Amino acid sequence: MTQAAPIGEPRVAVDLVAFDFDGVLTDNRVLVLEDGREAVFCNRADGLAFDWMRASPIVPLIISTERNPVVAARGRKLGVEVLQAVGDKGDALRALCGTRSIDMSRTMFVGNDVNDLPGMTAVHYPVAVADADPRVKAAAWHVLQSRGGAGVAREVAETLLGLGPAV
Amino acid sequence: MTQAAPIGEPRVAVDLVAFDFDGVLTDNRVLVLEDGREAVFCNRADGLAFDWMRASPIVPLIISTERNPVVAARGRKLGVEVLQAVGDKGDALRALCGTRSIDMSRTMFVGNDVNDLPGMTAVHYPVAVADADPRVKAAAWHVLQSRGGAGVAREVAETLLGLGPAV
Amino acid sequence: MTQAAPIGEPRVAVDLVAFDFDGVLTDNRVLVLEDGREAVFCNRADGLAFDWMRASPIVPLIISTERNPVVAARGRKLGVEVLQAVGDKGDALRALCGTRSIDMSRTMFVGNDVNDLPGMTAVHYPVAVADADPRVKAAAWHVLQSRGGAGVAREVAETLLGLGPAV
Amino acid sequence: MTQAAPIGEPRVAVDLVAFDFDGVLTDNRVLVLEDGREAVFCNRADGLAFDWMRASPIVPLIISTERNPVVAARGRKLGVEVLQAVGDKGDALRALCGTRSIDMSRTMFVGNDVNDLPGMTAVHYPVAVADADPRVKAAAWHVLQSRGGAGVAREVAETLLGLGPAV
Repeated sequence: MTQAAPIGEPRVAVDLVAFDFDGVLTDNRVLVLEDGREAVFCNRADGLAFDWMRASPIVPLIISTERNPVVAARGRKLGVEVLQAVGDKGDALRALCGTRSIDMSRTMFVGNDVNDLPGMTAVHYPVAVADADPRVKAAAWHVLQSRGGAGVAREVAETLLGLGPAV
Repeated sequence: MTQAAPIGEPRVAVDLVAFDFDGVLTDNRVLVLEDGREAVFCNRADGLAFDWMRASPIVPLIISTERNPVVAARGRKLGVEVLQAVGDKGDALRALCGTRSIDMSRTMFVGNDVNDLPGMTAVHYPVAVADADPRVKAAAWHVLQSRGGAGVAREVAETLLGLGPAV
Repeated sequence: MTQAAPIGEPRVAVDLVAFDFDGVLTDNRVLVLEDGREAVFCNRADGLAFDWMRASPIVPLIISTERNPVVAARGRKLGVEVLQAVGDKGDALRALCGTRSIDMSRTMFVGNDVNDLPGMTAVHYPVAVADADPRVKAAAWHVLQSRGGAGVAREVAETLLGLGPAV
Repeated sequence: MTQAAPIGEPRVAVDLVAFDFDGVLTDNRVLVLEDGREAVFCNRADGLAFDWMRASPIVPLIISTERNPVVAARGRKLGVEVLQAVGDKGDALRALCGTRSIDMSRTMFVGNDVNDLPGMTAVHYPVAVADADPRVKAAAWHVLQSRGGAGVAREVAETLLGLGPAV
């Protein structure tokens, strides 16, 4: 089999990458059905990215303010742990990293909206999507080229693991 | 917790903001299923905006010509009152404001299509979305930068409550 | 009530307008669910347009090659007659107009793809959407500014009934 | 009936065209419902294209890494054979062509992402969609003008069968 995606060492010292869900792994829109159920658009390009991260030393995580079955469903499909119904994403990340002995100086948070700011300021590498709120971009160490839902996790994984076009 | 969204006083004297639903809180498209049920795309950015309005002196309202379960479902999720199956949106607004002693000179209506014109002319601050019908734009006191479904309530809330990028 | 949409006489002599469904009243995409059911995106702007046509002398019609519950569902919602499972749209239109004594020289067909060509050549006013197949545009008397699903029936109704921006 | 789509001989010597599903016959997005079920956007323009291929000497095939009911559902609707849960698309294609005595030098593969590279290198005519991963484009004999889900099979069929705008 062709070795399409060699997995290297992370280019920056990151042990955990936390992704906000809506507006990061989706385009921030929500399809509302008549009975109130919701659905969102995710991207298959991110699916490969989570496979690569799970095969690397990096721990991916999805963290969401909402308690929504659709987030849990997507996490199950991707094989990625989900933290839901999180009031303050910074507190939640610090608690999780404390329990698992992960150094906060080796964490990344990818966000899009102002309720991600506590998570952005808690980590060492705050990252914003291309169409993030201006205040989120201002708080970011790096702004991605990808808009929410257009392959954000893919761009992050390729950057961290050295799978960019030039590789 | 980081204070991401300070709530100020409205910049214009507005006590009530009425939002049309289709084409304002959605992109005016409707997903039609085989059994005739419908679904629409809303925006998570608007969700935060309605949280901010409910925490402010401004009363938000959704007003729709259609009697559609999807509008009621979205209103429940947002915690916003919904007026449905409204024949004339101007008459409906005047009746509601009369009952609740709201001064019509302190009301705003956000619309996109010609059946919003009665609502636009009833209020003091008629507002049109960026992709509104030309006649609705012509009747508007202000035309938003956001197209329907792309964060209209967010732009309105940030403008009214002083949460814009410069703040 | 404000008279938002005055109904005039048709600007060209048209008694019947037949709309293809997929790619004309939709953007030609189809959402495929796991059980094989389908859903399509229609436009609320077209809803008002069909209301105006039904209040005018013009008879609107939806004509589709597919036998799909979603077409029937949309027709019911719009209050518009639907011809489904039509092999040759030209033959079907000639048969319907014969039965109802409608002069073919006073008919319009709005299409987007090559299976609409028999319908286009049967009517006096063949019309193509902005993103139609090149062969359909070549066969058209008029090419609309609207792409499929982006308000095609609205543009047709406003042109025929004199409800354009200048009115 | 107007002869809208004459079927000619393939312009290149192709007996089998294998289409990846996600990102080729779809736009690579997936709608995730609350119960974990998925849905994808396909294109009606591709429906006609598969009709034309089935009426020609070319055998169309859909080949997918995922085992997903939505792929099977789409294959049934199009009347096209589906290979699912394929680990290595190159091995799968070689096995299928061996069983059916199809010469690998007369096969085409249309892909978009790095897990298509084994299929791309197995066939004689590797083809990439317009928005494919850069490594897939680099491995392609031809890059299409169409993005995934925007009529890829249509462009392939018109090119192979001589149904382009000039015909």
